[in-house]
Amino acid sequence: MQRRMSTESRQASGESPEARNIPQAVIKRLSLYSRVLQALEMQNIEKISSAELGRQLGFNSAQVRKDLAFFGQFGVPGFGYYVEDLRINLRHILGKDRTVRVILLGVGNLGSALISYGGFTKQGFAMLRGFDIDPDRARERAHTDVPIVSTTQLEQEVGSMDVDIAVLAVPASQAQEMADRLVALGIKAILNFVPVRLNTPPDVHVRYVDLALELESLSYYVR
Amino acid sequence: MQRRMSTESRQASGESPEARNIPQAVIKRLSLYSRVLQALEMQNIEKISSAELGRQLGFNSAQVRKDLAFFGQFGVPGFGYYVEDLRINLRHILGKDRTVRVILLGVGNLGSALISYGGFTKQGFAMLRGFDIDPDRARERAHTDVPIVSTTQLEQEVGSMDVDIAVLAVPASQAQEMADRLVALGIKAILNFVPVRLNTPPDVHVRYVDLALELESLSYYVR
Repeated sequence: MQRRMSTESRQASGESPEARNIPQAVIKRLSLYSRVLQALEMQNIEKISSAELGRQLGFNSAQVRKDLAFFGQFGVPGFGYYVEDLRINLRHILGKDRTVRVILLGVGNLGSALISYGGFTKQGFAMLRGFDIDPDRARERAHTDVPIVSTTQLEQEVGSMDVDIAVLAVPASQAQEMADRLVALGIKAILNFVPVRLNTPPDVHVRYVDLALELESLSYYVR
Repeated sequence: MQRRMSTESRQASGESPEARNIPQAVIKRLSLYSRVLQALEMQNIEKISSAELGRQLGFNSAQVRKDLAFFGQFGVPGFGYYVEDLRINLRHILGKDRTVRVILLGVGNLGSALISYGGFTKQGFAMLRGFDIDPDRARERAHTDVPIVSTTQLEQEVGSMDVDIAVLAVPASQAQEMADRLVALGIKAILNFVPVRLNTPPDVHVRYVDLALELESLSYYVR
């Protein structure tokens, strides 16, 4: 789908970012830059140097310039960045200049927290539906306005919605089956909270969030 | 505290890992290797090559060998690794040859999911206490056997426990204050789910898990 772009972002995306190999860590840092810029704009700050932008996040200026250089020429040498301009450009690069449409599969303990997670809404994500094998129990647990329906209705519901990302929080034994159904529905991005490696086609992006793994990588430091 | 070590692990930790600069990504992969080895042991598989160990996780054999080389010489050239030996060594390196003691601060929606998260228990973590400013409401929400007490009791409770890691899931406005209190209590590792950068001394390890950021890094791929 083609969207109207500003001059800067057209220049920035002259070459398809998918075609280049942009490290996931860079994409993550873009989100962080974008948040700092949001905060600056709310304080009516109009420009910022790469050094200051980096400092607020604990990165150096070279890192900031290198990350942004993947996407085009945004700064003015010796001056820095226009806050609003850069924020709009980053939003576009991150696909955030529209609402990103999300569904959740598995409304257990973790799913209940995710379906009503304030951070998602705040960052421009719309949680459209929750799916659970026991939707009545899930509704009781989740306390949310997001409709929760039976997993058996997945194909029917998703068929009439435009879903960008599916969040997977089902039991491990169901993860691959659910992933297969999502892939069959044409969903290209899965945020997977299940500690199971999924088999998916190369054009489907899967990000793994393994909460126990985060804890483990800390336990290394407290031995 | 000194613990008995096997010959291999004494050799492996001859140099203090803290003194060297081991990338966090390597530590994370060690946990992944450790899980594959757990699964192999349960299937009574006695040895594995670096190629096969890597394949199960989508890494190549060079990656596996390079990661393990940070900690010592574990494999037998042309043979591979003894599954049980390597698993025991990795457990020790990761500080998992004892129960890692965890507390949770903030038992809201996300905190409720975290306090009873099965993955933590399964991976050898003990969730000792939850703390919330409204412990009665938190208890209703969380449905857990883990005691949930008032945040005002933090210093008193932690003083008598041996806490390794604190998980932070409080509102953003309280994150820094809570971190300060944890640091004052001598806690050296914080898993932070709050999208706020914390100011902590250099000897305190903080890992950030920003769920909206994970979603954002996916939205880039579905523009």
